[in-house]
Amino acid sequence: MAGVEPILRLVNQLSKLPGIGQKSAQRLAYHIISMPEEQVRELATSIFNGKKQVHFCPNCGNYTDTDPCALCSDDTRDKTILCVVKDPRDVAALERMRDYNGQYHVLHGVISPMDGIGPDDIRIRELMSRLASEPIEEVVLATNPDIEGEATAAYISRLIKPIGVRVTRIAHGVPVGGDLEYTDEVTLLKAFEGRREL
Amino acid sequence: MAGVEPILRLVNQLSKLPGIGQKSAQRLAYHIISMPEEQVRELATSIFNGKKQVHFCPNCGNYTDTDPCALCSDDTRDKTILCVVKDPRDVAALERMRDYNGQYHVLHGVISPMDGIGPDDIRIRELMSRLASEPIEEVVLATNPDIEGEATAAYISRLIKPIGVRVTRIAHGVPVGGDLEYTDEVTLLKAFEGRREL
Repeated sequence: MAGVEPILRLVNQLSKLPGIGQKSAQRLAYHIISMPEEQVRELATSIFNGKKQVHFCPNCGNYTDTDPCALCSDDTRDKTILCVVKDPRDVAALERMRDYNGQYHVLHGVISPMDGIGPDDIRIRELMSRLASEPIEEVVLATNPDIEGEATAAYISRLIKPIGVRVTRIAHGVPVGGDLEYTDEVTLLKAFEGRREL
Repeated sequence: MAGVEPILRLVNQLSKLPGIGQKSAQRLAYHIISMPEEQVRELATSIFNGKKQVHFCPNCGNYTDTDPCALCSDDTRDKTILCVVKDPRDVAALERMRDYNGQYHVLHGVISPMDGIGPDDIRIRELMSRLASEPIEEVVLATNPDIEGEATAAYISRLIKPIGVRVTRIAHGVPVGGDLEYTDEVTLLKAFEGRREL
Protein backbone atom coordinates (compact mmCIF):
# COMPACT_ATOMS: atom_id res chain seq x y z
CA MET A 1 0.00 0.00 0.00
CA ALA A 2 2.23 2.69 -1.41
CA GLY A 3 1.47 5.80 0.56
CA VAL A 4 -0.46 4.73 3.64
CA GLU A 5 2.14 5.08 6.35
CA PRO A 6 0.05 3.80 9.31
CA ILE A 7 -0.70 0.56 7.43
CA LEU A 8 2.96 0.07 6.50
CA ARG A 9 3.94 0.65 10.12
CA LEU A 10 1.33 -1.83 11.36
CA VAL A 11 2.40 -4.49 8.84
CA ASN A 12 6.02 -3.94 9.84
CA GLN A 13 5.23 -4.31 13.55
CA LEU A 14 3.09 -7.42 13.08
CA SER A 15 5.67 -9.11 10.84
CA LYS A 16 8.19 -8.93 13.70
CA LEU A 17 6.09 -11.39 15.72
CA PRO A 18 7.15 -15.05 15.65
CA GLY A 19 5.45 -17.15 12.95
CA ILE A 20 3.97 -14.13 11.18
CA GLY A 21 5.42 -13.47 7.74
CA GLN A 22 4.90 -10.51 5.42
CA LYS A 23 1.70 -11.91 3.86
CA SER A 24 0.12 -12.84 7.21
CA ALA A 25 1.06 -9.44 8.60
CA GLN A 26 -0.69 -7.72 5.67
CA ARG A 27 -3.76 -9.89 6.09
CA LEU A 28 -3.86 -9.17 9.83
CA ALA A 29 -3.34 -5.44 9.25
CA TYR A 30 -6.28 -5.21 6.84
CA HIS A 31 -8.39 -7.21 9.24
CA ILE A 32 -7.49 -4.91 12.12
CA ILE A 33 -8.32 -1.82 10.08
CA SER A 34 -11.72 -3.27 9.22
CA MET A 35 -12.52 -4.10 12.87
CA PRO A 36 -14.77 -1.79 14.94
CA GLU A 37 -12.70 0.87 16.73
CA GLU A 38 -13.73 -0.42 20.17
CA GLN A 39 -12.39 -3.91 19.40
CA VAL A 40 -9.13 -2.47 18.09
CA ARG A 41 -8.79 -0.43 21.27
CA GLU A 42 -9.32 -3.61 23.35
CA LEU A 43 -6.69 -5.47 21.34
CA ALA A 44 -4.12 -2.68 21.64
CA THR A 45 -4.86 -2.24 25.35
CA SER A 46 -4.60 -5.95 26.08
CA ILE A 47 -1.19 -6.02 24.41
CA PHE A 48 0.08 -3.00 26.30
CA ASN A 49 -1.37 -4.08 29.65
CA GLY A 50 -0.26 -7.67 29.14
CA LYS A 51 3.29 -6.36 29.09
CA LYS A 52 2.86 -3.64 31.71
CA GLN A 53 0.92 -5.51 34.39
CA VAL A 54 2.62 -8.89 34.14
CA HIS A 55 5.92 -9.55 35.92
CA PHE A 56 7.65 -12.45 37.65
CA CYS A 57 6.39 -13.67 41.04
CA PRO A 58 9.22 -12.95 43.51
CA ASN A 59 8.62 -16.34 45.12
CA CYS A 60 8.09 -18.91 42.34
CA GLY A 61 9.24 -16.90 39.31
CA ASN A 62 6.03 -17.49 37.35
CA TYR A 63 4.24 -14.70 35.46
CA THR A 64 1.83 -12.80 37.67
CA ASP A 65 -0.04 -9.54 38.02
CA THR A 66 -0.15 -9.82 41.83
CA ASP A 67 2.56 -10.28 44.53
CA PRO A 68 2.90 -13.10 45.32
CA CYS A 69 1.18 -14.84 42.43
CA ALA A 70 -2.26 -16.50 42.59
CA LEU A 71 -0.70 -19.98 42.75
CA CYS A 72 1.73 -19.13 45.60
CA SER A 73 -0.98 -17.39 47.64
CA ASP A 74 -3.61 -20.11 47.12
CA ASP A 75 -4.06 -21.77 50.54
CA THR A 76 -5.93 -24.71 49.06
CA ARG A 77 -2.76 -25.85 47.27
CA ASP A 78 -0.42 -28.43 48.79
CA LYS A 79 2.57 -26.66 50.38
CA THR A 80 4.63 -29.86 50.74
CA ILE A 81 5.27 -30.60 47.06
CA LEU A 82 7.11 -28.31 44.66
CA CYS A 83 7.45 -28.72 40.91
CA VAL A 84 10.54 -27.26 39.21
CA VAL A 85 10.16 -26.15 35.59
CA LYS A 86 12.21 -24.28 33.02
CA ASP A 87 9.87 -21.41 32.23
CA PRO A 88 6.38 -19.98 32.87
CA ARG A 89 4.91 -21.66 29.79
CA ASP A 90 5.56 -24.99 31.47
CA VAL A 91 3.54 -23.90 34.51
CA ALA A 92 0.68 -23.09 32.15
CA ALA A 93 1.01 -26.53 30.50
CA LEU A 94 1.03 -28.36 33.85
CA GLU A 95 -1.93 -26.35 35.14
CA ARG A 96 -3.91 -27.37 32.06
CA MET A 97 -3.39 -30.99 33.25
CA ARG A 98 -5.67 -30.06 36.23
CA ASP A 99 -4.21 -32.77 38.44
CA TYR A 100 -1.23 -31.20 40.17
CA ASN A 101 -2.11 -29.07 43.17
CA GLY A 102 1.27 -28.19 44.67
CA GLN A 103 3.76 -25.35 44.39
CA TYR A 104 5.92 -24.34 41.43
CA HIS A 105 9.41 -23.03 40.98
CA VAL A 106 10.37 -21.52 37.63
CA LEU A 107 14.10 -21.69 36.86
CA HIS A 108 13.98 -19.28 33.90
CA GLY A 109 16.33 -21.46 31.93
CA VAL A 110 18.34 -24.65 32.19
CA ILE A 111 22.04 -25.30 32.66
CA SER A 112 23.64 -25.19 29.22
CA PRO A 113 27.44 -24.87 29.12
CA MET A 114 27.29 -24.53 25.30
CA ASP A 115 25.29 -21.30 25.72
CA GLY A 116 27.36 -20.18 28.71
CA ILE A 117 24.48 -20.74 31.14
CA GLY A 118 25.67 -22.16 34.46
CA PRO A 119 23.84 -23.02 37.71
CA ASP A 120 24.21 -19.43 38.95
CA ASP A 121 22.41 -18.03 35.89
CA ILE A 122 19.10 -19.73 36.67
CA ARG A 123 16.97 -19.58 39.83
CA ILE A 124 18.60 -22.50 41.68
CA ARG A 125 19.75 -20.33 44.61
CA GLU A 126 16.16 -19.14 45.07
CA LEU A 127 15.01 -22.79 44.97
CA MET A 128 17.42 -23.77 47.76
CA SER A 129 16.31 -20.90 49.98
CA ARG A 130 12.66 -21.89 49.46
CA LEU A 131 13.52 -25.44 50.56
CA ALA A 132 15.02 -23.95 53.75
CA SER A 133 12.01 -21.76 54.56
CA GLU A 134 8.98 -23.64 53.18
CA PRO A 135 7.59 -27.01 54.42
CA ILE A 136 8.50 -28.79 51.18
CA GLU A 137 8.80 -32.60 51.38
CA GLU A 138 9.09 -33.47 47.71
CA VAL A 139 10.63 -31.70 44.74
CA VAL A 140 9.38 -32.87 41.32
CA LEU A 141 11.90 -32.02 38.62
CA ALA A 142 9.84 -31.28 35.50
CA THR A 143 12.45 -29.79 33.19
CA ASN A 144 12.19 -30.92 29.56
CA PRO A 145 13.49 -34.44 28.81
CA ASP A 146 16.32 -33.15 26.60
CA ILE A 147 20.06 -32.98 27.31
CA GLU A 148 20.03 -29.64 29.15
CA GLY A 149 16.83 -30.49 31.03
CA GLU A 150 18.24 -33.84 32.22
CA ALA A 151 21.56 -32.27 33.20
CA THR A 152 19.77 -29.55 35.14
CA ALA A 153 17.58 -32.14 36.90
CA ALA A 154 20.66 -34.20 37.81
CA TYR A 155 22.47 -31.12 39.11
CA ILE A 156 19.54 -29.99 41.27
CA SER A 157 19.00 -33.54 42.51
CA ARG A 158 22.59 -33.71 43.78
CA LEU A 159 22.13 -30.39 45.60
CA ILE A 160 18.85 -31.32 47.27
CA LYS A 161 19.42 -34.94 48.30
CA PRO A 162 21.87 -34.09 51.14
CA ILE A 163 19.23 -31.94 52.86
CA GLY A 164 16.84 -34.89 53.07
CA VAL A 165 14.07 -33.72 50.75
CA ARG A 166 12.57 -36.31 48.41
CA VAL A 167 13.50 -35.61 44.78
CA THR A 168 11.53 -37.08 41.87
CA ARG A 169 11.70 -36.71 38.10
CA ILE A 170 8.64 -36.76 35.84
CA ALA A 171 8.51 -40.01 33.84
CA HIS A 172 9.57 -40.25 30.23
CA GLY A 173 5.95 -40.23 29.18
CA VAL A 174 6.83 -36.87 27.69
CA PRO A 175 8.40 -37.75 24.33
CA VAL A 176 12.19 -37.56 24.52
CA GLY A 177 13.42 -34.42 22.79
CA GLY A 178 9.91 -32.99 23.12
CA ASP A 179 8.67 -29.87 24.78
CA LEU A 180 6.35 -29.67 27.80
CA GLU A 181 4.46 -26.82 26.24
CA TYR A 182 3.30 -28.96 23.32
CA THR A 183 2.52 -32.13 25.27
CA ASP A 184 -1.12 -33.10 25.60
CA GLU A 185 -2.75 -33.25 29.03
CA VAL A 186 -3.01 -37.07 29.18
CA THR A 187 0.69 -37.57 28.44
CA LEU A 188 1.53 -34.97 31.06
CA LEU A 189 -0.68 -36.80 33.55
CA LYS A 190 1.09 -40.11 32.83
CA ALA A 191 4.44 -38.43 33.13
CA PHE A 192 3.42 -37.06 36.50
CA GLU A 193 2.03 -40.36 37.78
CA GLY A 194 5.11 -42.28 36.68
CA ARG A 195 7.58 -39.94 38.37
CA ARG A 196 10.42 -41.84 40.01
CA GLU A 197 12.82 -41.15 42.88
CA LEU A 198 16.21 -39.85 41.80
CA MET B 1 -2.22 -19.58 32.94
CA ALA B 2 -4.70 -19.97 35.76
CA GLY B 3 -4.70 -16.67 37.59
CA VAL B 4 -2.96 -14.19 35.35
CA GLU B 5 -5.83 -12.13 34.03
CA PRO B 6 -3.85 -9.81 31.69
CA ILE B 7 -2.34 -12.84 29.93
CA LEU B 8 -5.72 -14.54 29.56
CA ARG B 9 -7.15 -11.31 28.17
CA LEU B 10 -4.28 -10.94 25.71
CA VAL B 11 -4.58 -14.57 24.54
CA ASN B 12 -8.32 -14.10 24.14
CA GLN B 13 -7.87 -10.93 22.06
CA LEU B 14 -5.16 -12.43 19.86
CA SER B 15 -7.14 -15.62 19.23
CA LYS B 16 -9.93 -13.52 17.69
CA LEU B 17 -7.64 -12.55 14.80
CA PRO B 18 -8.01 -14.55 11.57
CA GLY B 19 -5.69 -17.55 11.27
CA ILE B 20 -4.59 -17.37 14.91
CA GLY B 21 -5.78 -20.30 17.02
CA GLN B 22 -5.58 -20.81 20.77
CA LYS B 23 -2.03 -22.24 20.70
CA SER B 24 -0.65 -19.52 18.42
CA ALA B 25 -2.33 -16.88 20.55
CA GLN B 26 -0.64 -18.27 23.67
CA ARG B 27 2.71 -18.39 21.93
CA LEU B 28 2.32 -14.79 20.71
CA ALA B 29 1.16 -13.63 24.15
CA TYR B 30 4.24 -15.08 25.86
CA HIS B 31 6.42 -13.57 23.17
CA ILE B 32 4.83 -10.15 23.62
CA ILE B 33 5.28 -10.31 27.40
CA SER B 34 8.95 -11.13 26.95
CA MET B 35 9.51 -8.22 24.50
CA PRO B 36 11.09 -4.94 25.70
CA GLU B 37 8.38 -2.53 26.87
CA GLU B 38 9.28 0.03 24.20
CA GLN B 39 8.68 -2.52 21.41
CA VAL B 40 5.36 -3.55 22.94
CA ARG B 41 4.33 0.10 23.09
CA GLU B 42 5.21 0.49 19.38
CA LEU B 43 3.19 -2.59 18.49
CA ALA B 44 0.13 -1.49 20.49
CA THR B 45 0.38 2.06 19.11
CA SER B 46 0.71 0.90 15.51
CA ILE B 47 -2.44 -1.20 15.93
CA PHE B 48 -4.42 1.62 17.48
CA ASN B 49 -3.17 4.29 15.04
CA GLY B 50 -3.56 1.95 12.07
CA LYS B 51 -7.26 1.87 12.87
CA LYS B 52 -7.61 5.49 13.96
CA GLN B 53 -5.69 7.26 11.22
CA VAL B 54 -6.72 5.15 8.26
CA HIS B 55 -10.02 5.75 6.50
CA PHE B 56 -11.42 5.55 2.97
CA CYS B 57 -10.38 8.10 0.35
CA PRO B 58 -13.56 10.04 -0.53
CA ASN B 59 -12.57 9.93 -4.20
CA CYS B 60 -11.29 6.41 -4.97
CA GLY B 61 -12.39 4.55 -1.84
CA ASN B 62 -8.93 3.18 -1.09
CA TYR B 63 -7.44 3.22 2.42
CA THR B 64 -5.67 6.47 3.19
CA ASP B 65 -4.44 8.66 6.01
CA THR B 66 -4.71 11.84 3.89
CA ASP B 67 -7.61 13.44 1.91
CA PRO B 68 -7.55 12.70 -0.97
CA CYS B 69 -5.24 9.70 -0.89
CA ALA B 70 -1.64 9.70 -2.08
CA LEU B 71 -2.58 7.89 -5.30
CA CYS B 72 -5.42 10.30 -6.21
CA SER B 73 -3.30 13.37 -5.48
CA ASP B 74 -0.21 12.11 -7.33
CA ASP B 75 0.15 14.36 -10.40
CA THR B 76 2.64 12.02 -12.05
CA ARG B 77 -0.07 9.37 -12.43
CA ASP B 78 -2.11 9.00 -15.62
CA LYS B 79 -5.52 10.65 -15.18
CA THR B 80 -7.04 9.05 -18.28
CA ILE B 81 -7.11 5.42 -17.15
CA LEU B 82 -9.02 4.09 -14.15
CA CYS B 83 -8.83 0.62 -12.67
CA VAL B 84 -11.90 -0.72 -10.83
CA VAL B 85 -11.29 -3.24 -8.03
CA LYS B 86 -13.30 -4.95 -5.34
CA ASP B 87 -11.41 -3.83 -2.25
CA PRO B 88 -8.34 -1.93 -1.02
CA ARG B 89 -6.23 -5.11 -0.82
CA ASP B 90 -6.50 -5.37 -4.59
CA VAL B 91 -5.07 -1.86 -4.97
CA ALA B 92 -2.13 -2.96 -2.82
CA ALA B 93 -1.68 -6.08 -5.00
CA LEU B 94 -1.78 -4.07 -8.25
CA GLU B 95 0.61 -1.44 -6.88
CA ARG B 96 3.10 -4.22 -6.07
CA MET B 97 3.05 -5.01 -9.81
CA ARG B 98 4.78 -1.60 -10.29
CA ASP B 99 3.55 -1.26 -13.87
CA TYR B 100 0.17 0.42 -13.64
CA ASN B 101 0.31 4.18 -13.22
CA GLY B 102 -3.32 5.27 -13.52
CA GLN B 103 -6.21 5.90 -11.14
CA TYR B 104 -8.15 3.43 -9.00
CA HIS B 105 -11.73 3.01 -7.95
CA VAL B 106 -12.53 0.68 -5.08
CA LEU B 107 -16.07 -0.76 -5.16
CA HIS B 108 -16.01 -2.14 -1.61
CA GLY B 109 -17.69 -5.31 -2.70
CA VAL B 110 -19.15 -6.98 -5.77
CA ILE B 111 -22.70 -7.58 -6.89
CA SER B 112 -23.87 -10.78 -5.23
CA PRO B 113 -27.65 -11.44 -5.25
CA MET B 114 -27.08 -14.53 -3.04
CA ASP B 115 -25.74 -12.24 -0.29
CA GLY B 116 -28.29 -9.53 -0.99
CA ILE B 117 -25.68 -7.18 -2.44
CA GLY B 118 -27.00 -5.23 -5.41
CA PRO B 119 -25.47 -2.49 -7.61
CA ASP B 120 -26.59 0.21 -5.17
CA ASP B 121 -24.70 -1.40 -2.29
CA ILE B 122 -21.26 -0.94 -3.84
CA ARG B 123 -19.58 2.23 -5.09
CA ILE B 124 -20.91 2.15 -8.67
CA ARG B 125 -22.73 5.47 -8.38
CA GLU B 126 -19.48 7.12 -7.25
CA LEU B 127 -17.73 5.51 -10.24
CA MET B 128 -20.23 6.97 -12.69
CA SER B 129 -19.91 10.46 -11.23
CA ARG B 130 -16.11 10.25 -11.51
CA LEU B 131 -16.49 9.32 -15.18
CA ALA B 132 -18.56 12.48 -15.61
CA SER B 133 -16.10 14.80 -13.87
CA GLU B 134 -12.63 13.29 -14.52
CA PRO B 135 -10.85 13.00 -17.92
CA ILE B 136 -11.06 9.20 -17.93
CA GLU B 137 -10.73 7.52 -21.32
CA GLU B 138 -10.42 3.88 -20.27
CA VAL B 139 -11.88 1.89 -17.41
CA VAL B 140 -10.06 -1.37 -16.61
CA LEU B 141 -12.34 -3.76 -14.76
CA ALA B 142 -10.10 -5.70 -12.37
CA THR B 143 -12.63 -7.47 -10.19
CA ASN B 144 -11.75 -11.07 -9.30
CA PRO B 145 -12.33 -13.64 -12.08
CA ASP B 146 -15.05 -15.47 -10.12
CA ILE B 147 -18.81 -15.48 -10.67
CA GLU B 148 -19.58 -12.31 -8.71
CA GLY B 149 -16.53 -10.50 -10.12
CA GLU B 150 -17.48 -11.35 -13.71
CA ALA B 151 -21.10 -10.37 -13.14
CA THR B 152 -20.06 -7.06 -11.62
CA ALA B 153 -17.68 -6.38 -14.52
CA ALA B 154 -20.45 -7.16 -17.03
CA TYR B 155 -22.90 -4.91 -15.18
CA ILE B 156 -20.48 -1.96 -15.01
CA SER B 157 -19.49 -2.48 -18.64
CA ARG B 158 -23.13 -2.15 -19.73
CA LEU B 159 -23.44 1.07 -17.75
CA ILE B 160 -20.29 2.69 -19.10
CA LYS B 161 -20.35 1.75 -22.79
CA PRO B 162 -23.23 4.12 -23.70
CA ILE B 163 -21.21 7.12 -22.45
CA GLY B 164 -18.40 6.34 -24.89
CA VAL B 165 -15.61 5.45 -22.46
CA ARG B 166 -13.43 2.48 -23.40
CA VAL B 167 -14.02 -0.48 -21.07
CA THR B 168 -11.51 -3.31 -20.71
CA ARG B 169 -11.29 -6.40 -18.51
CA ILE B 170 -8.03 -7.80 -17.16
CA ALA B 171 -7.10 -11.03 -18.94
CA HIS B 172 -7.63 -14.43 -17.45
CA GLY B 173 -3.99 -14.63 -16.56
CA VAL B 174 -5.26 -14.51 -13.04
CA PRO B 175 -6.26 -18.11 -12.23
CA VAL B 176 -10.04 -18.54 -12.50
CA GLY B 177 -11.54 -18.76 -9.02
CA GLY B 178 -8.40 -17.17 -7.64
CA ASP B 179 -7.91 -14.02 -5.67
CA LEU B 180 -6.03 -10.89 -6.81
CA GLU B 181 -4.47 -10.50 -3.42
CA TYR B 182 -2.63 -13.81 -3.70
CA THR B 183 -1.56 -13.51 -7.32
CA ASP B 184 2.13 -13.00 -8.03
CA GLU B 185 3.34 -9.82 -9.72
CA VAL B 186 4.22 -11.47 -13.06
CA THR B 187 0.78 -13.04 -13.47
CA LEU B 188 -0.81 -9.71 -12.62
CA LEU B 189 1.38 -8.02 -15.23
CA LYS B 190 0.30 -10.54 -17.89
CA ALA B 191 -3.31 -10.13 -16.88
CA PHE B 192 -2.96 -6.41 -17.29
CA GLU B 193 -1.19 -6.58 -20.66
CA GLY B 194 -3.75 -9.03 -22.03
CA ARG B 195 -6.75 -6.93 -21.08
CA ARG B 196 -9.44 -6.97 -23.77
CA GLU B 197 -12.22 -4.65 -24.81
CA LEU B 198 -15.65 -5.59 -23.44
